[in-house]
Amino acid sequence: MNNKRSVHCFQVLSLVFFFVLGIQDSVQGRLLSVSKKPHRNDAAAYARWLVSQNSWGVLNTISKDLGGAPFGNVVSFSDGLPNEGSGIPYFYLTTLDPTASNALKDKRSSLTISEYPLGTCGKSDPENPSCAKITLTGKLLVVDKNSKEEEYARSALFTKHPEMKGWPKDHNFQFFKLEIEDIFLINWFGGPKPLTVDQYLQTKKSKLAFVLSKYI
Amino acid sequence: MNNKRSVHCFQVLSLVFFFVLGIQDSVQGRLLSVSKKPHRNDAAAYARWLVSQNSWGVLNTISKDLGGAPFGNVVSFSDGLPNEGSGIPYFYLTTLDPTASNALKDKRSSLTISEYPLGTCGKSDPENPSCAKITLTGKLLVVDKNSKEEEYARSALFTKHPEMKGWPKDHNFQFFKLEIEDIFLINWFGGPKPLTVDQYLQTKKSKLAFVLSKYI
Repeated sequence: MNNKRSVHCFQVLSLVFFFVLGIQDSVQGRLLSVSKKPHRNDAAAYARWLVSQNSWGVLNTISKDLGGAPFGNVVSFSDGLPNEGSGIPYFYLTTLDPTASNALKDKRSSLTISEYPLGTCGKSDPENPSCAKITLTGKLLVVDKNSKEEEYARSALFTKHPEMKGWPKDHNFQFFKLEIEDIFLINWFGGPKPLTVDQYLQTKKSKLAFVLSKYI
Repeated sequence: MNNKRSVHCFQVLSLVFFFVLGIQDSVQGRLLSVSKKPHRNDAAAYARWLVSQNSWGVLNTISKDLGGAPFGNVVSFSDGLPNEGSGIPYFYLTTLDPTASNALKDKRSSLTISEYPLGTCGKSDPENPSCAKITLTGKLLVVDKNSKEEEYARSALFTKHPEMKGWPKDHNFQFFKLEIEDIFLINWFGGPKPLTVDQYLQTKKSKLAFVLSKYI
């Protein structure tokens, strides 16, 4: 009986392991539990927390229609299931909106997020450096259709933004992602925190990936 | 006694009239009471309400350091005293931050604001068109030093953001404004609302300017 249990446990663990590896492979960023606000000196963890806890931000593209001006647009996003972020922001955008059509002409983009609407800034002004803000700059890309990553994006977005499931089918909504190339994070006085994209995506933890622990 | 009162009243009215004209002249946008959420079909009033009620947004510039990418940054702003907006967003920015230094090289800019953090969107998702969003596109300019407009900007910003008064003097903070050239407003289904800059700045009201009424 004990042996049977061990074999069963091993099978489940193997499945979970390959499932997690599969997701990692398709979404790049290491999955991470990010429900608790990290210490401000842990720039990577703080950035991941900020991205994971927010549900919306401003997505910026270059607008040819407006003389090449930077055009910001309020969008919803998700980087994963609740409290299980990948660090990579996914979007559900229609080309009826300028942002998606701008990105199809010029991929340069940034996503800007504030800690202020989370309500964790105390009495600080939204522009006070102790109220964190992050700008992820990179390329705004359409997620490959019928790929594992599209499945992941759909699940990540529709879980955090349930009404998206019912948005009009004839509006040509597509899944996009921001391929991050640069990170600008301010979460305290003294200027932006040094933080590479690799540090951000692969944030180290002292324990095994928390995702595994949920299935064992 | 009645005559004296009339003369006194006339003098006060004249002073108020020229005071208001003076402000109008220096800040362009007609001052407007904007505390109550207007009907969604009144695009100009809705846009002015959205700008006046918010205290922060994302200000976008072109970043030469990031290959000409659109760079959004969380900033605080004010378009006037509380419930007395001019429609023109003013900012208090330091060139230690990329946004101000970007703008000194390339003035193209936009300010993006969401209704979502105001808490008036009900259960709508932040990307749902019934949760309003506005993008003001134009030029990000330094306000002329020692001008009436600078006085106005200081008063508008420091009233809504009191801690700004104490921000470090050696950080080279300056007053900026967005000279609006285009308005993108979504506050319901059916795409952006047609709205010219002139309609936005000069929003008509059926009564005399409310500012006068406060002094009579």
